[in-house]
Amino acid sequence: MASLGENSWGKSAVRISKVLRGEDQDGFLDLEVQVLMSGDVAAAYHEGDNSAVLPTDTTRNTIYGLAQEQLGADLESFGAVLTRHMLAKDGIESVTASIKGRRWDRETPTGFTGGSSERRLAVVRQSAGGDPEVEAGIEGLIVLKTGGSAFTGFPRDEFTILPEAEDRLLSTSINARWAYSSVPADSTGVWNRIRGILLQRFFEDWSASVQHQGWLMAQAVLDSVLEVSSVTFELPNQHHLTFDLDRFGIEDNKTVFHPVSEPYGDIRFTVNR
Amino acid sequence: MASLGENSWGKSAVRISKVLRGEDQDGFLDLEVQVLMSGDVAAAYHEGDNSAVLPTDTTRNTIYGLAQEQLGADLESFGAVLTRHMLAKDGIESVTASIKGRRWDRETPTGFTGGSSERRLAVVRQSAGGDPEVEAGIEGLIVLKTGGSAFTGFPRDEFTILPEAEDRLLSTSINARWAYSSVPADSTGVWNRIRGILLQRFFEDWSASVQHQGWLMAQAVLDSVLEVSSVTFELPNQHHLTFDLDRFGIEDNKTVFHPVSEPYGDIRFTVNR
Amino acid sequence: MASLGENSWGKSAVRISKVLRGEDQDGFLDLEVQVLMSGDVAAAYHEGDNSAVLPTDTTRNTIYGLAQEQLGADLESFGAVLTRHMLAKDGIESVTASIKGRRWDRETPTGFTGGSSERRLAVVRQSAGGDPEVEAGIEGLIVLKTGGSAFTGFPRDEFTILPEAEDRLLSTSINARWAYSSVPADSTGVWNRIRGILLQRFFEDWSASVQHQGWLMAQAVLDSVLEVSSVTFELPNQHHLTFDLDRFGIEDNKTVFHPVSEPYGDIRFTVNR
Amino acid sequence: MASLGENSWGKSAVRISKVLRGEDQDGFLDLEVQVLMSGDVAAAYHEGDNSAVLPTDTTRNTIYGLAQEQLGADLESFGAVLTRHMLAKDGIESVTASIKGRRWDRETPTGFTGGSSERRLAVVRQSAGGDPEVEAGIEGLIVLKTGGSAFTGFPRDEFTILPEAEDRLLSTSINARWAYSSVPADSTGVWNRIRGILLQRFFEDWSASVQHQGWLMAQAVLDSVLEVSSVTFELPNQHHLTFDLDRFGIEDNKTVFHPVSEPYGDIRFTVNR
Repeated sequence: MASLGENSWGKSAVRISKVLRGEDQDGFLDLEVQVLMSGDVAAAYHEGDNSAVLPTDTTRNTIYGLAQEQLGADLESFGAVLTRHMLAKDGIESVTASIKGRRWDRETPTGFTGGSSERRLAVVRQSAGGDPEVEAGIEGLIVLKTGGSAFTGFPRDEFTILPEAEDRLLSTSINARWAYSSVPADSTGVWNRIRGILLQRFFEDWSASVQHQGWLMAQAVLDSVLEVSSVTFELPNQHHLTFDLDRFGIEDNKTVFHPVSEPYGDIRFTVNR
Repeated sequence: MASLGENSWGKSAVRISKVLRGEDQDGFLDLEVQVLMSGDVAAAYHEGDNSAVLPTDTTRNTIYGLAQEQLGADLESFGAVLTRHMLAKDGIESVTASIKGRRWDRETPTGFTGGSSERRLAVVRQSAGGDPEVEAGIEGLIVLKTGGSAFTGFPRDEFTILPEAEDRLLSTSINARWAYSSVPADSTGVWNRIRGILLQRFFEDWSASVQHQGWLMAQAVLDSVLEVSSVTFELPNQHHLTFDLDRFGIEDNKTVFHPVSEPYGDIRFTVNR
Repeated sequence: MASLGENSWGKSAVRISKVLRGEDQDGFLDLEVQVLMSGDVAAAYHEGDNSAVLPTDTTRNTIYGLAQEQLGADLESFGAVLTRHMLAKDGIESVTASIKGRRWDRETPTGFTGGSSERRLAVVRQSAGGDPEVEAGIEGLIVLKTGGSAFTGFPRDEFTILPEAEDRLLSTSINARWAYSSVPADSTGVWNRIRGILLQRFFEDWSASVQHQGWLMAQAVLDSVLEVSSVTFELPNQHHLTFDLDRFGIEDNKTVFHPVSEPYGDIRFTVNR
Repeated sequence: MASLGENSWGKSAVRISKVLRGEDQDGFLDLEVQVLMSGDVAAAYHEGDNSAVLPTDTTRNTIYGLAQEQLGADLESFGAVLTRHMLAKDGIESVTASIKGRRWDRETPTGFTGGSSERRLAVVRQSAGGDPEVEAGIEGLIVLKTGGSAFTGFPRDEFTILPEAEDRLLSTSINARWAYSSVPADSTGVWNRIRGILLQRFFEDWSASVQHQGWLMAQAVLDSVLEVSSVTFELPNQHHLTFDLDRFGIEDNKTVFHPVSEPYGDIRFTVNR
């Protein structure tokens, strides 16, 4: 007869972010958490009896629910919080909590880059008998700020449930291309300068929308580098959703978020000199 | 002075699935939708005035909201529904709706495979002076059924909000490995037979949980192929969430879902002969 | 003092394809192989003495070298060939060979689809006061044929080393979009018909290049579906390179290949009615 | 009758790396290049006449061939070199060269990190009645050095063609996990310290193999952090292949390489205190 061997269940790929509000600067954590449990659940396999199977959905909620109070920079500590919490339940015999933290580099007290996928771009187009047309650009420069962004005053219809946001976390992947009317002698140095301008404007300027933020960035590039004739942006709004801890009887202080990679707000535009 | 050129906004990578309930069989659609709009939104860029910027969140909700009534097999028709709906709003001047449909192959009246990433596995381990130990397996065999699955009777705690589900859509990616006590002469033929058994049991057997479903599959393999000494499964529960159309004044008839790739329920176990 | 624990070395992600030539039809295998070895290599760690470290490059070459004679449909057998071969070497104590076979579905005696990433596309663009413009398409329909393709007579310069190929294996991912002058009533049925035409022409027509193959496909679509006004293709040439077994004293019979995903030949064109 | 519209051909996703040797420090470029051409190739489509179709393989070779002399930090300049070279050929009417440069951060005069995918790991396992067992780790810390690495003295068999390398470029993705006998009070600070040790040893220590390099790294961690009881590494050897420019009549000075992501040498080991 068949017999159940080693087994486990739980939730994987739980993405959670947390702002660690501070006096002088904010910290930011962006984690992927997995919690796997083992216990006496043979009846679930043999007879479809779920009375000992804590839902994996509950596992996920637990991660968010405990994070507000107990998640800090020491991931090992939060891992132990999770294993201890789960082991306290009837029938749970062992627990493994695995946490992966993405790297974000501090740029300002509230600004971070997560430059993983960043690419420098150069595109040259040339036709027979013509001069080369040159574009430069940057792709995948991931930025996040924990304040200095709002989105209010938008129109509402029967499908609108988005609340007004006076102060929100804003994250995007900067994809920018600029056309040169003439290529600067030191095109690498100019590229670095433009990258710096984009970051500075993103982190220092308050914005009313992604569009508004992008406009301020584009203007600054055009003001600073005379060889640039136009700038085109694609700025995906990489949403960090609230999770509604109030459902669990926890007063949600809006530091814990659910980052999602899809869907994303998709903002595209060109600014000409 | 800088001037705004071509521009658009909207939502990208909106994943939506729909069950097309039928008398003899169900249909299933699994789409990724993008809706981009253009219109008179210069004030949003110049002044942070969002009064003409329909939120991209609303764009997303619209896709789900209109899908229940108007999404069918002809994706082109639903694309035109979306562009027409958006164009009817003040200030929207042009709209592009792009839809990508994933391929699902029908296996039974309510069962489908989406075999994109399917791999056949063979693993041979051998030590000096020993015989080879052979495992075979299958990885990434994606299956979905529109009924024949439940999840009820589970324990509840302060973090449990999951409702009991008497009849739910079930989808997983079958990852199975089986050890051979002796390798069958026709190992390719036996592999195909086991693949067929896995699909048959998934589609034909009612299950009370992923664990229960997996147990029935493992038992059938052990019963049918005597050379198999144990089977190990990893079965991610690939959730298709409801979207709550009631928020929009639409009676939700539970045919429209939001498929998510993360997080996923993570069920792992071994069954020994 | 520190001591070396469990350890292994070898090559992972070795992609290898093989045509199994037959009288009535060809078979095709597309594998990813990993071979990991353990043995007495402590001196390599402690002193940088490599005299017992079979290079991982040799591991890779071995996989290709043994495949021509000994790789067939039963992956388990080839796994055992690999472990036995490696174990015969001095100092190797245990070997694990893991093989993943991609799925290819037979369409014709020499034609296959590997439909993993296939998507159906529908794009509707509409402006205020205008009619919708509709495109349909297909993305990522992966096809491969083991004959019926050549590439000869091309110009040569100082950087040309490509040999003329009278008979080659051809594989691409069909990315096609077609514009409708008027949308057919049964747009799903027409989509299926066009998919069938694309496959039929790819598998049945001999071609002198990807461009030539694509032209024949485009013409057939325009001939068969009067509502189509133009077809645009992007056809990446997904190369299956020869591996040169002659270097190892094996007469290369041109059945074993090295498939590469990058770089790829990139062929794009539009055909108008 | 059907007529050919807009069209182009060329090579995409050509990965090329180059060491910019300097007196005080080396530079390093890691690029993905695409070159697309248009010209009078209607006969190729209509009649399978390839006499005007420069092979995409030649396009690729050209990129490598011109890179040794003419590729520097200014990617725009190299783009223009490519368009000019291609336009000089008969029948080529326009060319677009697109270059994406991956970001590498300098750590030492010859050492770089490409930290894109870096993750910090924490894993806690606990059983009922037991203490938590804690591992910490790092995943995907990509490192590269342009010297200070060799691989010689290895055994040779009939499948060995790898030349001895006295001085080679070495790149890997550091995947390390260490077990704590007791968790340090400041586990985040200790994690940062271990990360620094790993980088320092990789960049500063000459190594005879990946195994040797890893051993030196593991020893340094065990020496410096007494709470660590063992370290486990997975170190994929991310090969940068030579391209053999001599085939084109160019004396290869070994600064231009072909980076490949698969296959990779796969080195795994544990070092216990």
